[in-house]
Amino acid sequence: MKACIVHKPDSGDVARDVLKFLTEIGVSAEILQDWSLAKDFDFIVSVGGDGTILRLLQFIEGKTPPIFGINTGKVGLLTHCDANFREFLLKAIEEFETEEFMRIECVVDGEKLLALNEIAILTAKPARMINVRIFVDEIEIEDIRCDGMLISTPIGSTAYALSTGGPIIDPYVESMLIVPVAPFKLGWKPWVISADRKIKAEVDSDAFVVADGHKIVSADSTSEIILRKSESYAVFFKVENRIGKIVRKLRLIR
Amino acid sequence: MKACIVHKPDSGDVARDVLKFLTEIGVSAEILQDWSLAKDFDFIVSVGGDGTILRLLQFIEGKTPPIFGINTGKVGLLTHCDANFREFLLKAIEEFETEEFMRIECVVDGEKLLALNEIAILTAKPARMINVRIFVDEIEIEDIRCDGMLISTPIGSTAYALSTGGPIIDPYVESMLIVPVAPFKLGWKPWVISADRKIKAEVDSDAFVVADGHKIVSADSTSEIILRKSESYAVFFKVENRIGKIVRKLRLIR
Amino acid sequence: MKACIVHKPDSGDVARDVLKFLTEIGVSAEILQDWSLAKDFDFIVSVGGDGTILRLLQFIEGKTPPIFGINTGKVGLLTHCDANFREFLLKAIEEFETEEFMRIECVVDGEKLLALNEIAILTAKPARMINVRIFVDEIEIEDIRCDGMLISTPIGSTAYALSTGGPIIDPYVESMLIVPVAPFKLGWKPWVISADRKIKAEVDSDAFVVADGHKIVSADSTSEIILRKSESYAVFFKVENRIGKIVRKLRLIR
Amino acid sequence: MKACIVHKPDSGDVARDVLKFLTEIGVSAEILQDWSLAKDFDFIVSVGGDGTILRLLQFIEGKTPPIFGINTGKVGLLTHCDANFREFLLKAIEEFETEEFMRIECVVDGEKLLALNEIAILTAKPARMINVRIFVDEIEIEDIRCDGMLISTPIGSTAYALSTGGPIIDPYVESMLIVPVAPFKLGWKPWVISADRKIKAEVDSDAFVVADGHKIVSADSTSEIILRKSESYAVFFKVENRIGKIVRKLRLIR
Repeated sequence: MKACIVHKPDSGDVARDVLKFLTEIGVSAEILQDWSLAKDFDFIVSVGGDGTILRLLQFIEGKTPPIFGINTGKVGLLTHCDANFREFLLKAIEEFETEEFMRIECVVDGEKLLALNEIAILTAKPARMINVRIFVDEIEIEDIRCDGMLISTPIGSTAYALSTGGPIIDPYVESMLIVPVAPFKLGWKPWVISADRKIKAEVDSDAFVVADGHKIVSADSTSEIILRKSESYAVFFKVENRIGKIVRKLRLIR
Repeated sequence: MKACIVHKPDSGDVARDVLKFLTEIGVSAEILQDWSLAKDFDFIVSVGGDGTILRLLQFIEGKTPPIFGINTGKVGLLTHCDANFREFLLKAIEEFETEEFMRIECVVDGEKLLALNEIAILTAKPARMINVRIFVDEIEIEDIRCDGMLISTPIGSTAYALSTGGPIIDPYVESMLIVPVAPFKLGWKPWVISADRKIKAEVDSDAFVVADGHKIVSADSTSEIILRKSESYAVFFKVENRIGKIVRKLRLIR
Repeated sequence: MKACIVHKPDSGDVARDVLKFLTEIGVSAEILQDWSLAKDFDFIVSVGGDGTILRLLQFIEGKTPPIFGINTGKVGLLTHCDANFREFLLKAIEEFETEEFMRIECVVDGEKLLALNEIAILTAKPARMINVRIFVDEIEIEDIRCDGMLISTPIGSTAYALSTGGPIIDPYVESMLIVPVAPFKLGWKPWVISADRKIKAEVDSDAFVVADGHKIVSADSTSEIILRKSESYAVFFKVENRIGKIVRKLRLIR
Repeated sequence: MKACIVHKPDSGDVARDVLKFLTEIGVSAEILQDWSLAKDFDFIVSVGGDGTILRLLQFIEGKTPPIFGINTGKVGLLTHCDANFREFLLKAIEEFETEEFMRIECVVDGEKLLALNEIAILTAKPARMINVRIFVDEIEIEDIRCDGMLISTPIGSTAYALSTGGPIIDPYVESMLIVPVAPFKLGWKPWVISADRKIKAEVDSDAFVVADGHKIVSADSTSEIILRKSESYAVFFKVENRIGKIVRKLRLIR
């Protein structure tokens, strides 16, 4: 079994501890500099926060190896334990139970983005609204002036989408959440749609399309923006009580 | 093939037209007075509105025969056509394509309720809040003083739950929506959870538990209120473009 | 100077302490059984919570004597200190600085209600919506199916109105807040209007009109419901930092 | 009496009509190129939309001359009539009844901004939140990660602030509305505070401070951002039924 370790710049010490530990328990491991190689390992240990995992995922286009997250920052939703990782990491490797979460794929004029949390379509000019039209399976469900529009996964419902009127979605309910950011309109609602549907977005002026806050592509009124569930699942070592984990995280942002 | 017809008191004329039409096309049919017999027919034609169908469903405990709704009132979400039913009803019977939507089952101190839209747990005293605690698979996700709490199906997301901060949920995403009515609390969110989970509710004072606005059971601080997805699906003749139908309905309540 | 003391049933001990203390500092005082006499004293000490003060106010139709609230329950917004009242009450009496907050007056078919927090117009039947139309200076601003409608004072913005989409309003901004409870409508907004305007409400079916959760009057589709700012101000001993007090209270209901 | 005319680039024709009309009725008038001269006239005719008036106001630091708005675009809230202006403009000049609306003044590190609608404090990086702390008379009322924070006038409650959870505020209720844009927090509320209070904002990273969507100033974690009611009122010819005008505008964005 071959593992790799990725880490946040400030978490090199913990990463080296992980390397030593994995070697001790007989796992061949290395600390990766070039994260695009991560996809070829049997599993990945991420040392940092949710942000580190989100960045890592930008480097893996297909289904990912199982990820184990060691949290060295604020409480995360995607991580498995804090810097006292030994017991938890050992158990995870021994049992090797995993679970997978859908990602959303967005194609903007041929360029492809992949997101575990959300694709945000945002005005390119601060304090200037854009008009966004959203089509689900070719049916227009929304036509709205706003700061932007989010298309979020269930996992992403506790990320950027939490800042809007969106609900918390159980990560085991495969679906896509569509919700505007600062809509200049009285009558609108968040939509939770089947993950099998296709979404098309149109904007009337310059916009940024942003995947998980990390990768940005430009779009304009001529762009075709297509979103759908990706088959490139993100795989994680299993977390026992995911509802409880969400409840604890929400308490921190009350 | 044997069909029955149920109708709203003011829609007897249309019901008789349906009876005549079904007889003409060779379907043995009758207008039902005792709706509890409806479950033994091959299909049911409901003449009225969404409310008529919701009332009908209170009489059918298991999986229902396919229902065809003729709308004689305001635009409904569960109906298939208006009083000019011939072409649509004929096509529905010929193709006999159906779809089924989950119902929620609620047991209050041993008494069972069944709802296509929602179970509402409401204060029994006007302008007096109750405290509701909600547990999902034994995890407490909410503890809140409010006018009430809704546990809604996806179909129900355009009914009472629309009056709260809940999202619109695609009827093809099997899930349960949990959302408070008038919560006296700043930090709360609607939850969309997997339909496989079990919900438990506790109240601290006198409450009404209401299924689809029709059936009411009393509860108090000693009550055990358990909710889960029912296997008693509601079956309907298929509607082609359900997202479009929802969009049109939402436009009417802007 | 003549003072009276009113108290919650369970706070008789503290009330007797207050009586003793007032006598010691030379204030003629008595514990009132008949609260309708309270208006004839130079000031009132209320022992209990916000609810006690709200109940007391139901007995005083004109401008009230200054009220000093001793809190024996949960943290209140209208009270001045907890059961260790001596220092605070002494200072209040010595300085005798007061402030006054507007009440709303509501006339339903000739019957008059007075509220410091809010007038709630609520459906008389649980889980059955009513339609409410709201006119401001004869202009219809809302026509909405809902569980109810609140017309709140600024002080009331942290009471029942907090359970709806209403804002927190500075008690020193004289105004009335109009906000629906569980509106079955997508496009609506809370309104904050000038306290000088006249509000008229119409309902289409049986409703309860409730003042501060205490006094209830019935209304129906023939009723005339008129609301305006009352000249019967509620007078309180001054609280130094009211914004800070609100912030602390809000923290408790996060 | 001396009047000036300002106009949107595409509305020169109507502006020349206005010039001709004013000359006919004996008012000395001219079409202004340099809008900073507008403050020295007896009144101003703006030809365009609300945006034209907002831009004009950026050129006038003190109390403005009365403004009459001729709308050549979408329905505006600040304009008085459409391109058929003769009757309305004549009546306005004859009666010369005016009303004034408060503006907000914002000082960022010594640089001054003036807004009729709102001051928006926005993250300088798309899809990256900033943390904003808000102090009212030195009391911290909010500490929140968000896309931004708005401090709006009552007039501005139907502008950018409408895109957030803010209420509609009667323009005759002098007050300031504080409301976040896309707050990453469960427990928050819009605040409506007295116009006499002082607001201080602090950000933790690069931000733009934007007045009415027109004037932008940069800020960062070292900046002092102070906001208060300006004495530089915006003066308009009187509109009879302002509540009705707001209701009609809201209907357009349902």
